[in-house]
Amino acid sequence: MSNEYLFTSESVSEGHPDKVADQISDAILDAIFTQDPQSRVAAETLCNTGLVVLAGEVTTRANVDYINVARETIKRIGYDNADFGIDYKSCAVLVAYDKQSPDIAQGVDEGRGVDLEQGAGDQGLMFGYACNETPELMPAAIYYAHRIVERQSQLRKDGRLPWLRPDAKSQVTLKYVDGKPVAIDTVVLSTQHSPDIEQKDIHEAAIEEIIKPVLPAEWLKNTRFLINPTGRFVIGGPQGDCGLTGRKIIVDTYGGAAPHGGGAFSGKDPSKVDRSAAYAGRYVAKNIVAAGLAERCQIQVSYAIGIAKPTSVMVTTFGTGKISDEKLSQLVLEHFDLRPKGIVQMLDLLRPIYAKTAAYGHFGREEPEFTWERTDKVAALRASAGL
Amino acid sequence: MSNEYLFTSESVSEGHPDKVADQISDAILDAIFTQDPQSRVAAETLCNTGLVVLAGEVTTRANVDYINVARETIKRIGYDNADFGIDYKSCAVLVAYDKQSPDIAQGVDEGRGVDLEQGAGDQGLMFGYACNETPELMPAAIYYAHRIVERQSQLRKDGRLPWLRPDAKSQVTLKYVDGKPVAIDTVVLSTQHSPDIEQKDIHEAAIEEIIKPVLPAEWLKNTRFLINPTGRFVIGGPQGDCGLTGRKIIVDTYGGAAPHGGGAFSGKDPSKVDRSAAYAGRYVAKNIVAAGLAERCQIQVSYAIGIAKPTSVMVTTFGTGKISDEKLSQLVLEHFDLRPKGIVQMLDLLRPIYAKTAAYGHFGREEPEFTWERTDKVAALRASAGL
Ligand SMILES: C[S@@+](CC[C@H](N)C(=O)[O-])C[C@H]1O[C@@H](n2cnc3c(N)ncnc32)[C@H](O)[C@@H]1O
Ligand SMILES: C[S@@+](CC[C@H](N)C(=O)[O-])C[C@H]1O[C@@H](n2cnc3c(N)ncnc32)[C@H](O)[C@@H]1O
Repeated sequence: MSNEYLFTSESVSEGHPDKVADQISDAILDAIFTQDPQSRVAAETLCNTGLVVLAGEVTTRANVDYINVARETIKRIGYDNADFGIDYKSCAVLVAYDKQSPDIAQGVDEGRGVDLEQGAGDQGLMFGYACNETPELMPAAIYYAHRIVERQSQLRKDGRLPWLRPDAKSQVTLKYVDGKPVAIDTVVLSTQHSPDIEQKDIHEAAIEEIIKPVLPAEWLKNTRFLINPTGRFVIGGPQGDCGLTGRKIIVDTYGGAAPHGGGAFSGKDPSKVDRSAAYAGRYVAKNIVAAGLAERCQIQVSYAIGIAKPTSVMVTTFGTGKISDEKLSQLVLEHFDLRPKGIVQMLDLLRPIYAKTAAYGHFGREEPEFTWERTDKVAALRASAGL
Repeated sequence: MSNEYLFTSESVSEGHPDKVADQISDAILDAIFTQDPQSRVAAETLCNTGLVVLAGEVTTRANVDYINVARETIKRIGYDNADFGIDYKSCAVLVAYDKQSPDIAQGVDEGRGVDLEQGAGDQGLMFGYACNETPELMPAAIYYAHRIVERQSQLRKDGRLPWLRPDAKSQVTLKYVDGKPVAIDTVVLSTQHSPDIEQKDIHEAAIEEIIKPVLPAEWLKNTRFLINPTGRFVIGGPQGDCGLTGRKIIVDTYGGAAPHGGGAFSGKDPSKVDRSAAYAGRYVAKNIVAAGLAERCQIQVSYAIGIAKPTSVMVTTFGTGKISDEKLSQLVLEHFDLRPKGIVQMLDLLRPIYAKTAAYGHFGREEPEFTWERTDKVAALRASAGL
């Protein structure tokens, strides 16, 4: 008997308030890294009606106009009119950065602390994942949820649907049969809009111009479309909902198709393993699947603050592996240096490359900055596995 | 051949800055609900050196002194001296609540909007989980990680270890053989402390008085203890690290032993399915395991904003079920009303019960307020399953 089930993931556009916060945090990280890539940065952002708060810990020699970076980010997203949810020109921006705690710094800095290597910037657990549901080796539901909101933003910015406004959320429910996606059961799209357009016209444009062009046609059979189901979405952005950095961590990763360790990414320099080790986890898992060693691969790593070596590494392939999970774990330890400094070198992370990551997913992206998406370990892994 | 692996989860104490933010958000929700349980609340908090920001959306008839609720929460946690990381008496508290967007309200309110039933307060996906690793039917790693930081707080508050300060983090790495936990491989504990105590004394007290008393003795074989691995943790709380509501969502739930939908809990009234449907998911999964219908059970539900009926429900038992996952899904739909209003009634959620949930986990708790931990559907489920 075949086994059928539904699985759902969601995404949000760059105008979603939590994503506005993420993008401001990463724009500030990039502005700092452009001048001083040795900086320690934990930049958190809160945005609400007319207000942006920048807080967290920053130790740097860079000289950055934080307020201007925040305003420019809000402008780039498209919030240039208070009627849209916030106006980059007129909102208040409060800056309350402190320095990194010297007690933490002594644990992280190379040559100081208990472990003389560069220690992990925090304790924690991180997961990496890949599967062969899409060519990018991403779970299909989150992949297509991203494409919908990305297209919403394109059609807004190039003026094809001028009544679109920046804030939007998508959700894709896939039907699986025997572990493989075979159809799209339901698509939800809520998009902010100008008050002049009728709901009927929003529905039609959303389905025909935003959603259908980015979904596989063969999966659209009896698909249900739920468009702006509140019936009205004129108020949006930080005015409709308070945004905080790090509050879209499932959208940022695998859409719930894999577990999450809980650590957020945006605003954090890569000495923070929450970010760098999650990127490394994706790199490991993707190379294993790309090498044909498994159809699905998940890795968990964990760290103690101030210590370089991970406290645990676990690799699972859910029965899809060409070699045993234990052998695969061995291969991973041989081919990937998962100490904080090793990760930074392996993925070349001390660069101002983070603003792009802060919307439409940190994984499954093809831009060159996303070094953790490279599959350059495939040949070495296959050779070691004897394939 | 037996299959061995390591799995890691973490927890944090009530003095951790993200948890300070969560507790302020839920204390404000409770203060509002005490006066007006029909309120709509999305209370976000940011706390940093000397500063607390209260923002989000609140629509209520209650008259609450928000600043005082925030200060009292910080005091209760134990931050009554600026040397500890923040002082409840002297910190700045900024209040920037807006009202719930009327466009959202029309989708959520009963009798308005597209769906005349009470609609979900947001789209999104939520997971519920239970397994038989502990009597509370929780994954063991997160369960014991909570117990360690809970005991840190006890020994601090009752004065037995007077040099302890509020901020702490724990991490537990379990060794599994053939899918069952058999030993504790590593325990990490970082605890804030007064400057007067030696690291050597911290190590000894942490291992002997905090950690060992709460862990199963038979699992402590060759266990590695990493205590304050930065070498110093005097600066802590919101001074050491900026805290935000909703940034400990894996600590709040299953420690990474199950996926997460991404939605945070604290500060949200139960019309927000991020919270109420995740509680309902735990209730469903726990009752299924308690009924002996499976050793492990995971449920995913998803919603569209403004619509009452879930857009998808998926139940999995990972091959441990007494009946098929499809039959079990049927049983779930028969025995549990997963519409927003049904959940609120089933779990009696319109009460000021949330402050307690905001530290040491929302699940696996035995206090009477945690209605989602009741196993009162066991008999009915067994009968329907023919057991
Ligand atoms: C529904 S809000 C979360 C709840 C909100 N904090 C409140 O107080 O009700 C979450 C997201 O939904 C989207 N949203 C805002 N207004 C909406 C509307 N009228 N209809 C549909 N989606 C909306 C925005 O992307 C927003 O960030
Ligand atoms: C290490 S901080 C996160 C990084 C931080 N934002 C920064 O700028 O480096 C995360 C948590 O670790 C704990 N912590 C703070 N200071 C510490 C120390 N000196 N040693 C160990 N843990 C510490 C606190 O619970 C804190 O909230």
